[in-house]
Parts: sequence; C-alpha cells; structure tokens
Amino acid sequence: MLKKEITAQELFNELCKSGLYNEVGEIKFELAGVSVKISTTDTVGITLQSWLKQYLIEKNYVFEEPVNTQEFPDFYLGLSKPTEKMLEVKSFNYSATPAFDIANFESYCVSIVTKPYRLNADYLIFGYTMNSDGNINIRKIWLHKIWEIAGVSERFAVKTQVKRGMIYNLRPNSEFKRNVPGPFKDKDQFLYALYITLIDYKGSEFAENWKDRLKHNYKDYFNSSLPF
Amino acid sequence: MLKKEITAQELFNELCKSGLYNEVGEIKFELAGVSVKISTTDTVGITLQSWLKQYLIEKNYVFEEPVNTQEFPDFYLGLSKPTEKMLEVKSFNYSATPAFDIANFESYCVSIVTKPYRLNADYLIFGYTMNSDGNINIRKIWLHKIWEIAGVSERFAVKTQVKRGMIYNLRPNSEFKRNVPGPFKDKDQFLYALYITLIDYKGSEFAENWKDRLKHNYKDYFNSSLPF
Repeated sequence: MLKKEITAQELFNELCKSGLYNEVGEIKFELAGVSVKISTTDTVGITLQSWLKQYLIEKNYVFEEPVNTQEFPDFYLGLSKPTEKMLEVKSFNYSATPAFDIANFESYCVSIVTKPYRLNADYLIFGYTMNSDGNINIRKIWLHKIWEIAGVSERFAVKTQVKRGMIYNLRPNSEFKRNVPGPFKDKDQFLYALYITLIDYKGSEFAENWKDRLKHNYKDYFNSSLPF
Repeated sequence: MLKKEITAQELFNELCKSGLYNEVGEIKFELAGVSVKISTTDTVGITLQSWLKQYLIEKNYVFEEPVNTQEFPDFYLGLSKPTEKMLEVKSFNYSATPAFDIANFESYCVSIVTKPYRLNADYLIFGYTMNSDGNINIRKIWLHKIWEIAGVSERFAVKTQVKRGMIYNLRPNSEFKRNVPGPFKDKDQFLYALYITLIDYKGSEFAENWKDRLKHNYKDYFNSSLPF
C-alpha cells in the first residue's frame, strides 16, 4: 500500500476531528498473575508517544525516527530530510500547570547554533487527565512552535527548571493552555531571551561567542540576519 | 484481614521462588481504537515498580510510600519509621550493562548528611529483557545495599553520569550483574569515595564542610565514628 504524506498541521486537524476527546485509555501490565493498571502519570508521556507512532503506522503515514530514538526530534513526518517536518510530542497533566521539559537548556542552546532549523520544529502537545483508577482522557491538544510554548521567569529571561542554581530544562509558559499568546511573538524574541539567559548564566564571553556562531548559521538557513 | 510484615530479604526470597523468571509481561495501551504494546524500555522501570506495589497490596503486606512519591525511598516495608525498612526499586535491561540512576549525585550527598540512615536502604533490582514485540522477561533480581552497586570511574572516585562536565547521577558498577563484588566493601569506603569526588568536583572547602556535618550525624546514628 502506498504510504501517504502528512504535515504536522494535517495530523493535528485529523486528531482534533477524530473524537479523541471522548475516548478513555488505560495502561495495563500483567506479570505472574498480578495485573496492574498503571495509575501514576510518569509513563503517560512516553505511552502517548508510542500510541502516536502506532497511529501513524496504522494510518499508513510516511514518517521516520532518529537512529537514536532518545534524540531530537521524536518524528520526522516525511522521509528523513533532517531540516524539515520535525515533530516533537509533549504531554502534561491537564489538571495542573504545564510543566513538561521542552528540552535540556544547554543542549538546546548548543544544538541550534549548528542546526538553527530546529527552531522550525512543531510541538504536538497532549493535555490529559488521569483519574485514580488510571483512566486516561485526552482533554485537549495543541500544535505550536517552541517560541509559542516557551516562557519567562523571574530569575531568567526564559523559563527554566532550576535546581541548586543549575539550569536543567526549558519549561513552558502557562498561557498556551488557555490559548493565550505567550511572551515571545516570534523565534527571534525567543532567541534573544536565550541570549540574555546565557549572559546571566554562563557569562558575556560565552554568550557572545554563542551569538557569533549562531549568527553565521542563522543567515545561511533563514536567508535573513539575526536581528540582535 | 490482618496485614503481614515482610522484610526486604523475605520479599526478595519470595520473588526468587515465585517462578517470576518464567513469566512474560507486556505493557498495553489502547486509545481511540489504536492499541499499542509498549515496546520501548523507557517505561519498564516505573511499570515494574507499580507492579511491585500491586504485588504488596495483593499479598497483604504492610508498606507505605512517601507522601511525595517522587521522593526517596520508593517504599517503606513497615509502618512509617523513616529510618528503617527503606526499599528502592531499580530496573535495567539485562542485555546491556546496568546503567540506571541510583540517585542524583548532589541530592544524595546532601541528604545523607542529615539522614545518614539512608545508607541502610535496600535496593531491589530487576534485570529484564524486552524483545521486539514488547514481551518483558524478568531475567534476574538482586537485593543490595548502595555501596554494593555503586562503582568507580576513571574520572571520579564514584561512578557517575557526567554531561558537559556536570555530574548528574550516581551510576552502578557492572560487577554486581555477574554477582562479583564491586569496588566498595562497606558503606564507609563508599562514603570516602563520595568525599573524594566532592573534593574533585566541588572543591576542598565544600567537601570538608560536608564531611564535618556528616561526621556529627553519622556518630549519632551509627554509634561509631566516621573512619576518615
């Protein structure tokens, strides 16, 4: 059967129309006669990602994964042209404030210097609830670019997870959950916030060096100059 | 029905005798008519922990969990006397070298200063395999103290996960998988290796301060002096 091409936007529209919001899912594990319905939310994210992969397979859509599946992105919707059609899948408990890891902060900063096209990746986000019986409901889904889900915090120009003074991960804003625009209106505002955060966190020399290297690759890829 | 007390050793013996090694488990998720057998190993650890919890419930054993289930330990086998009967559950792919996170390095160092009894916690470790169909087999289980599973590395006196020069987690030795003793013969040798690692990583002042504070609580709890 001929595989079909699908864009992130088409996939998103299809999922929205599919009646997904009325369905109940559950994660089950049985071993040695002891059956468990997994009722902790820890595994929901990775499970929804596996579910989406199976969905793409059963619908016969063209997609690929990175050779190392731990790497960015979760899926390429198309035949591996690594600068296009990158899809990241994120999930969060819809009863709470979105608090998933968008990406490791330092890895992300380093990677967009040489791969600025990663700024174009689409983020498909599942907001789910799980009741005490382990029943999972998809309450809402979103499709966004990274600057639409990134946020600011009191401490840094981008919202991050900080432990003992060390920045671990980029964390999302809370506005997108209510369909309200976040603090960044485009990728450049987001990049500028990363730059300011790097000055604060790694010092000016590091940040300037990062910006100089980004500038070069940015121009090659986006056919315009980095505006700061 | 009266709940039964069980020690980590008794639980371990019971699991060994239960024929667990011949059983096949699978993790399934169904949503909107798309069923997935989860065949990535990411969720196996947390699933086995859920399974063990259900096992304890069905067998009517006394146990408790910390109020915040993300915290140490995974279980108290007994009614919460937080200095005793701490059980941590770890899992790794038996086809590979053990590479689970024993604990966050800095959190662990900080926590044993005020809670040296955490050194007494038991670690129940599942070695599993998963085939390409997502069938999970428990291949071996172990019960160990932290110094029996901790290791050394070329870079530091304890084996750790290091990314861009930063220590993230304590990682296990590879010997325990073959039932060969690891590099530390007791808790004090392990503590000394933490101390040396702290000197290397955080500097002497930090390490001496850590040792001084540990010394005090160590004596109170173990009724002996810290031997370094």
